[in-house]
Amino acid sequence: MAGNSFGKQFRITTWGESHGPAIGVVIDGCPAGVKISEEAIQAQLDRRRPGQSYISTKRSEPDRAEIMSGVYEGITTGAPIHILIKNRNADSKAYDNIINVFRPGHADYTYTRKYGHRDHRGGGRASARETACRVAGGAVAREFLSGKGIDVFAHVIQIADVHAKDFDRQVIEANDVRCADADAAKIMIDKILDARKNQDSVGGVIEIRAEGVPAGLGEPVFDKFNADLAHALMSVNAVKGVEIGAGFAVASRYGSENNDQMRIENGKPVFISNNSGGVDGGITNGNSIVARIAVKPTPSILKEQKTIDNDNKETTIKVEGRHDPCVLPRAVPVAEAMTLVTIADHLLRDRSAQA
Amino acid sequence: MAGNSFGKQFRITTWGESHGPAIGVVIDGCPAGVKISEEAIQAQLDRRRPGQSYISTKRSEPDRAEIMSGVYEGITTGAPIHILIKNRNADSKAYDNIINVFRPGHADYTYTRKYGHRDHRGGGRASARETACRVAGGAVAREFLSGKGIDVFAHVIQIADVHAKDFDRQVIEANDVRCADADAAKIMIDKILDARKNQDSVGGVIEIRAEGVPAGLGEPVFDKFNADLAHALMSVNAVKGVEIGAGFAVASRYGSENNDQMRIENGKPVFISNNSGGVDGGITNGNSIVARIAVKPTPSILKEQKTIDNDNKETTIKVEGRHDPCVLPRAVPVAEAMTLVTIADHLLRDRSAQA
Amino acid sequence: MAGNSFGKQFRITTWGESHGPAIGVVIDGCPAGVKISEEAIQAQLDRRRPGQSYISTKRSEPDRAEIMSGVYEGITTGAPIHILIKNRNADSKAYDNIINVFRPGHADYTYTRKYGHRDHRGGGRASARETACRVAGGAVAREFLSGKGIDVFAHVIQIADVHAKDFDRQVIEANDVRCADADAAKIMIDKILDARKNQDSVGGVIEIRAEGVPAGLGEPVFDKFNADLAHALMSVNAVKGVEIGAGFAVASRYGSENNDQMRIENGKPVFISNNSGGVDGGITNGNSIVARIAVKPTPSILKEQKTIDNDNKETTIKVEGRHDPCVLPRAVPVAEAMTLVTIADHLLRDRSAQA
Amino acid sequence: MAGNSFGKQFRITTWGESHGPAIGVVIDGCPAGVKISEEAIQAQLDRRRPGQSYISTKRSEPDRAEIMSGVYEGITTGAPIHILIKNRNADSKAYDNIINVFRPGHADYTYTRKYGHRDHRGGGRASARETACRVAGGAVAREFLSGKGIDVFAHVIQIADVHAKDFDRQVIEANDVRCADADAAKIMIDKILDARKNQDSVGGVIEIRAEGVPAGLGEPVFDKFNADLAHALMSVNAVKGVEIGAGFAVASRYGSENNDQMRIENGKPVFISNNSGGVDGGITNGNSIVARIAVKPTPSILKEQKTIDNDNKETTIKVEGRHDPCVLPRAVPVAEAMTLVTIADHLLRDRSAQA
Repeated sequence: MAGNSFGKQFRITTWGESHGPAIGVVIDGCPAGVKISEEAIQAQLDRRRPGQSYISTKRSEPDRAEIMSGVYEGITTGAPIHILIKNRNADSKAYDNIINVFRPGHADYTYTRKYGHRDHRGGGRASARETACRVAGGAVAREFLSGKGIDVFAHVIQIADVHAKDFDRQVIEANDVRCADADAAKIMIDKILDARKNQDSVGGVIEIRAEGVPAGLGEPVFDKFNADLAHALMSVNAVKGVEIGAGFAVASRYGSENNDQMRIENGKPVFISNNSGGVDGGITNGNSIVARIAVKPTPSILKEQKTIDNDNKETTIKVEGRHDPCVLPRAVPVAEAMTLVTIADHLLRDRSAQA
Repeated sequence: MAGNSFGKQFRITTWGESHGPAIGVVIDGCPAGVKISEEAIQAQLDRRRPGQSYISTKRSEPDRAEIMSGVYEGITTGAPIHILIKNRNADSKAYDNIINVFRPGHADYTYTRKYGHRDHRGGGRASARETACRVAGGAVAREFLSGKGIDVFAHVIQIADVHAKDFDRQVIEANDVRCADADAAKIMIDKILDARKNQDSVGGVIEIRAEGVPAGLGEPVFDKFNADLAHALMSVNAVKGVEIGAGFAVASRYGSENNDQMRIENGKPVFISNNSGGVDGGITNGNSIVARIAVKPTPSILKEQKTIDNDNKETTIKVEGRHDPCVLPRAVPVAEAMTLVTIADHLLRDRSAQA
Repeated sequence: MAGNSFGKQFRITTWGESHGPAIGVVIDGCPAGVKISEEAIQAQLDRRRPGQSYISTKRSEPDRAEIMSGVYEGITTGAPIHILIKNRNADSKAYDNIINVFRPGHADYTYTRKYGHRDHRGGGRASARETACRVAGGAVAREFLSGKGIDVFAHVIQIADVHAKDFDRQVIEANDVRCADADAAKIMIDKILDARKNQDSVGGVIEIRAEGVPAGLGEPVFDKFNADLAHALMSVNAVKGVEIGAGFAVASRYGSENNDQMRIENGKPVFISNNSGGVDGGITNGNSIVARIAVKPTPSILKEQKTIDNDNKETTIKVEGRHDPCVLPRAVPVAEAMTLVTIADHLLRDRSAQA
Repeated sequence: MAGNSFGKQFRITTWGESHGPAIGVVIDGCPAGVKISEEAIQAQLDRRRPGQSYISTKRSEPDRAEIMSGVYEGITTGAPIHILIKNRNADSKAYDNIINVFRPGHADYTYTRKYGHRDHRGGGRASARETACRVAGGAVAREFLSGKGIDVFAHVIQIADVHAKDFDRQVIEANDVRCADADAAKIMIDKILDARKNQDSVGGVIEIRAEGVPAGLGEPVFDKFNADLAHALMSVNAVKGVEIGAGFAVASRYGSENNDQMRIENGKPVFISNNSGGVDGGITNGNSIVARIAVKPTPSILKEQKTIDNDNKETTIKVEGRHDPCVLPRAVPVAEAMTLVTIADHLLRDRSAQA
């Protein structure tokens, strides 16, 4: 129990169901003295908001962030920051047919087995709507970290069998799929629209990068920076894989290829390569943090699927309602948020490293 | 700070350096009433022990487990279990040349940046020798879980570009590389020996499976079973990627391919496939748990590499000493241990799920 | 940082300032299947509510509890329960004169030293208004525990030099001071009114009792039941002492007087006395839990006091505004709440004691 | 479960039973760069050691501290510090008669109820022998804190009905009872010897003081400095009450008497009194920390007492073995240790207070 918090020094606790009156996040441990711009937080929520483009769900939620505590005269006080987001456009009737039927690939069956009693409406607590709270928490972390020169961003590098081949950061937010390769983005969008037309959905890969992270973050041996980051990212709905730096590619490499050798440049240590993804021995080395996550295709599809019901009877289901045929574009700010919280947490924890 | 523990209800805390007098683990939260066989714990340590085969390091450590508390008349009492493992065969002289020089791919540079003062001998706290403590902790979890019908094992499925194609569980412990495909194992061993001959090292992939895990384990939304497992596995030295079920393969799939549909068999719910790896919505679904980790090639290689020293001067290094040219065979019991601890922890946490 | 949570398995996290838009509590870890009556929660808040009698502050707050998550069709789902309480009657102008002046006995000076930036209005985060959230969290714990036959109540046993001599549980909620001795209650109330007339305030002692707590709760050696309870109670504003069972009286006793001897009654073990307050070796023994807390006189008094300001200049202050001349009557439900949360937490933790 | 750790950033985890091969403590989170003198740690253990004077138990234990990790060339590295203390003089036969009989005032009954299976020898895990580990952990905290100008000491202020009336710090360690009043000490010792002669034991009160603690330590609202300190001290065996500053005396005071007013002295803020014990609103205010604990008379007495056995049968018991007739003198360093760990932990946590 009590698994709704993440972080030790900088800690977010989220609450709320998809079709309840609201959802929210408590950010505990944000240091005092951080300027908080409500617009900056809203801007992040807008990136995750449903209904933002024609390839996302049509549920129309303004996702308005209300800061209810912890900020006085625009500056954090060290007290917990609570951000509330009201649910405005829930349509619970669309879920009446799944009161007793388990949707494949969803948490319906497992929540029932674990808790006995469950709120089925819109997926209840298991809904990806909860990730709006993560984005709000991450936005506060971002305000704190930007003051330290740390910059985190993510982008889609694969949808179905389409891979990004180019990288132009300016392009990421300029296309609906959040890909840094404008040409690939167009093909990716076609893949997504095709999937929707076929009553189906598609998966993909997101890459996360953090620049300006100082050397020294991460606590050996279990709270390694990469271990906490893997925890953070794997906790995001639909994520089935996490890799750091060269990731699974290390499997087929020799040590002499994979080690990041060092030299001095302008009097400062630099790494000649970045296969480590900015982490050696679980501690950041000053290089860019690079991670990637595999995101599964949305399990909610209109195609008929075999399943069972509460009474252990076989049945079939076509999942109706308003669903994204591909969750990756909206998962980009969520992946950033979890990375931001992880960095903020470790930045504070690292302050205890030396006497 | 304080990152040397893993688990909330079933918690392991490890201590010790590669070349100190000993290393050890405190297991806190193991329920009372579990029969502990010292032989069973030793058997697991023997699987991780250095010098066990001609493809592993020649450091000869008996790795004798001494249970010092928490067990009375062979049965756990609920008190913390401390297991001590003495270091017998440390050779610190071999490390004299790295007092001031950072080995590429190691934690030498990051520990220095974080802590200022470091024990360089054998890698100090960052040494993979620490994983012996994890294996001891996992062995206690195994004793607890085997009483619940839970069985965890791992095996090497890739070394360099060689992939296992067959699966015979009986074969795993019968070859030095711990591969379930006896034919592939031979080629893998050749790859490892070649690497050593070339003063180099190789990486690979390990798969972990857990059978008999009941539905319901995992705490939404941040302490999802897969999130904690990713944390656990990514904290193991040299791991650069973790995936659950279909893992990164989900990226190029359609939802209709990837969803695990259900039916009733002998009156019980079963999944027609297992792309989820036994976890839906962060909670185990009763299916086999399947995870895989990418393990990088050993960074300690004899080949000359560019690096820098404590005084920010460029230099080169050939890492001597007794190193495994491939750590995967010995990482198999470590991966199992982390999985066992994760399951034990969540089994206990799940006891609070219903009133 | 991150100190706004209490409990490990049953955990409350509170947020909010005295003069912000609202305050709230997230209850994480309440098992699924507990019936939650909104009226029962409101009834507890009403007991702590300001303005409830002529001896309490005149700030008029309805303290309406809004359950925003975690409860579906009146029953907990295992998801976090968020309860929001709006602030309606804040009067920030009364605090303008303390923007730069530190009130003696308050947190003004220490918050300024710790955080640099502070919300002075109504005491901000340090206001006892925060305890409404504890009462709401405790009310949920009460619903869970009443299903297990556990009953927790508290009462005032001392105000200034007036001690309760009689005990009639029925009388507690029938007088404004919440004393189980109706005659003493009258004298206590006179003491409080006298203090107010004299621009002063008074302190006292509250006793907390828990009946029906099973033997076995408490985790050695640091999370002893009494250690966690002391933590919980000492965290309540104005509490300066906590004792269990005979408490400080043990100092002048002999072991033969103080030990609780045992006998068998109706086939069951019973203790002949209860000097332990229901806890031996940090674990509940099945006897009634008995604890007492010393509560200091309200620091906000109209009498002139010496103090300093933000610029390290000496000054004097008369603390105006609407304050209780004695906080004990309203602290009774808070003390119960912290005890309820502690018991709920340990009841769940104890489920891991045996294999 | 998992209650054998204390502290969040500076955390001690203890293990071991009274009659096992050894006991120990893992100190996780001690910053790198602290000089550790093994003699300083031993000196603290010697103050707690059994057999140190004619009023303590005759069990003769050298309590030799072996630092096994985390310190390299006499300086901490940031890695966990493990200190092992071997048990040398256990006499388990003296406990044969309590295998099935519960000693009044001990944890025998409650451990049996909680765990089912227990190590009865010398009290097993519940033995006060465990506190040697706390002293070792506290000694490391002391080394860290003395570098910050923080000084912690404790002394006995009451034994039975004898109260210290004078205070001379030099005297504390010069008498066997550790009282700062040399005359009172003599009477206290007589009280203790009388109790032993009468096959009985006595209780008392210890005062703890910490000088040099900076303003700002403590995390609102649940991890207040005083709340964590109460937790720490109440977790010590035999402690039944904890108070801060004026403590229970506040109950009979007026606010105007109890508030600590402020003035400027030599340009710096000072408090005119210290009724708060150095803590306002849960945060240290720069004044001396003052706390007191009530310690019960040793439950192990030779006088015959009524009790029951494992089979729910009534019986009587005379507790033989080597016991202190009064535990306070040896509890003094334990109380200091818990205070030191609490301060170290909060000193590190406070580093996150401001951006």
